[in-house]
Amino acid sequence: MAGRVSVPEFKKERDRLNEIVMKYAGLETKRFYNLDSQVYRKGGALPVKIKELLGLVASLVLRCDECIKYHIIRCSEEGLTDQELEEALSISLIVGGSITIPHLRRSWDTWEELKHSK
Amino acid sequence: MAGRVSVPEFKKERDRLNEIVMKYAGLETKRFYNLDSQVYRKGGALPVKIKELLGLVASLVLRCDECIKYHIIRCSEEGLTDQELEEALSISLIVGGSITIPHLRRSWDTWEELKHSK
Amino acid sequence: MAGRVSVPEFKKERDRLNEIVMKYAGLETKRFYNLDSQVYRKGGALPVKIKELLGLVASLVLRCDECIKYHIIRCSEEGLTDQELEEALSISLIVGGSITIPHLRRSWDTWEELKHSK
Amino acid sequence: MAGRVSVPEFKKERDRLNEIVMKYAGLETKRFYNLDSQVYRKGGALPVKIKELLGLVASLVLRCDECIKYHIIRCSEEGLTDQELEEALSISLIVGGSITIPHLRRSWDTWEELKHSK
Amino acid sequence: MAGRVSVPEFKKERDRLNEIVMKYAGLETKRFYNLDSQVYRKGGALPVKIKELLGLVASLVLRCDECIKYHIIRCSEEGLTDQELEEALSISLIVGGSITIPHLRRSWDTWEELKHSK
Amino acid sequence: MAGRVSVPEFKKERDRLNEIVMKYAGLETKRFYNLDSQVYRKGGALPVKIKELLGLVASLVLRCDECIKYHIIRCSEEGLTDQELEEALSISLIVGGSITIPHLRRSWDTWEELKHSK
Repeated sequence: MAGRVSVPEFKKERDRLNEIVMKYAGLETKRFYNLDSQVYRKGGALPVKIKELLGLVASLVLRCDECIKYHIIRCSEEGLTDQELEEALSISLIVGGSITIPHLRRSWDTWEELKHSK
Repeated sequence: MAGRVSVPEFKKERDRLNEIVMKYAGLETKRFYNLDSQVYRKGGALPVKIKELLGLVASLVLRCDECIKYHIIRCSEEGLTDQELEEALSISLIVGGSITIPHLRRSWDTWEELKHSK
Repeated sequence: MAGRVSVPEFKKERDRLNEIVMKYAGLETKRFYNLDSQVYRKGGALPVKIKELLGLVASLVLRCDECIKYHIIRCSEEGLTDQELEEALSISLIVGGSITIPHLRRSWDTWEELKHSK
Repeated sequence: MAGRVSVPEFKKERDRLNEIVMKYAGLETKRFYNLDSQVYRKGGALPVKIKELLGLVASLVLRCDECIKYHIIRCSEEGLTDQELEEALSISLIVGGSITIPHLRRSWDTWEELKHSK
Repeated sequence: MAGRVSVPEFKKERDRLNEIVMKYAGLETKRFYNLDSQVYRKGGALPVKIKELLGLVASLVLRCDECIKYHIIRCSEEGLTDQELEEALSISLIVGGSITIPHLRRSWDTWEELKHSK
Repeated sequence: MAGRVSVPEFKKERDRLNEIVMKYAGLETKRFYNLDSQVYRKGGALPVKIKELLGLVASLVLRCDECIKYHIIRCSEEGLTDQELEEALSISLIVGGSITIPHLRRSWDTWEELKHSK
């Protein structure tokens, strides 16, 4: 219900906070951050676009706004189409129910913002 | 922890975002939105007030602020009393535990706002 | 996916386990157990049947089989009708999504068992 | 922690329970069941295999064993490879954490069973 | 993704909202609030610092920002060290997965704020 | 609601399933498994007993029976006392609410089994 945060503001705040995490992080936290990049990386059997879509759907049903925003941005960078996104989000909605609707709304809002900023 | 959003602002933002969803929505998403209205509709065995209270308790234990706000508004429109709300929220609190307290607080805050705006 | 547990077996195992909890329970745990009875008790603004229905819907969307079974039994004891149950469960399904379906299935299975044992 | 349920037993029990649901189901529940088939159907932008994979990842992070088993079976029917599954499950594991490991184990156990029954 | 809320603002808003809750609270809600203080209280086998750390880890994996902030403040008051916090948060991260990272970030951000305000 | 699984049966089944996971696991899954051991390891600021207790509380509020059983066993091996366990479980109960009670019951049931097998 909080006010909108634009994509550039989101990235800036995310970077600021990650720096604080890294200031305190022990070896396990750093390794986890590393794994969190590797699973979405190019190579292997699934295209990056699909990996990011899997991350998005997981984030949607778990209802984490920052995670959703991050994967929406990545999906956009990987050239996902409107229809591909709609099909993935409709699966999330059916699996997760109406409780996911506020996050569905903000997903499309970020998608719109990304289209207009191109 | 975000700043308060008044009921009129909440409704306005909700409408703005639903318009964006509908711009992209496929048939399944539209049908789900439709079902999401129908289950709370008048008719059947349970009064609308109780249906909205069921929606509120579900939203409270799942800890979705927008969903809570929406059902609190609807409960108020259906003439729910303070004591009925208190009993339903105390069940939510016992089922869901202290992790629901921030949402319990905001539920009563919205309830107060609605009383003062009458 | 586990095998069916009949209502009498469920009650017996629940009693056995609660005895073990009470053997170790400190004051706070005992008080919490007490509160957990009180919020569903007769008296106040909402009928017991509705309080149990609120407990059921909360348990359904949080997907706890034992909690669901307990409240289904209590709803049956309080004279809830098939249609009232169906309306409450359809709200749970829409709020919680397809991920709740396995629990919805077991809810109706217990309901059937209770009808046949009357 | 419950004993293993084989794929044929799983399907049989699922059918038995769905019949009970349908005996009591109102219009909204039936329509929801319908939508729950449609979102994974052929047609549209994403291949069925990817849609089922999205359903699997959503089920994994939400930790629903029956939902996982259902989508693992469907992924197998759609010709998903070991490596595609491994990449999707590693994303689920990183997003959902060690709390998903018991479900990850049962996912691979079902996958093995399906391979041996071919 | 909402803007930062400082510790003093957080406490003030929390007090304001708790007053509204108490205005409407019935006996069960008041007793629950009481239990919620007692379980973290001095006395017993575990030191208060460890009890607060248990509350923090529970709040982190359940992803409740206000609950996290409250326990971070209490851990700081009880003299928790940077390294003790890091070890507890790395356990939360591994158990809860990448979906907890936004909350991990805000945990350290609050910790930094508390250090600078000493 | 499933039948009880003894500690030795639990360990055996867990080993059998972990072998299947490792048969298919890619590098990221293996590294995650490794991290999942390291965060509870001896060394650092918190004693192993407290680290395991943090893992237990996280597992309790997230309601994962296998994870709970594993950490209860580990806590027992590390010499946790009845009272320390009771205090940690009462915090979990207050944070997580009555929805955690079925898991609380099984926690104490496993604890009893471990005491009798000594």
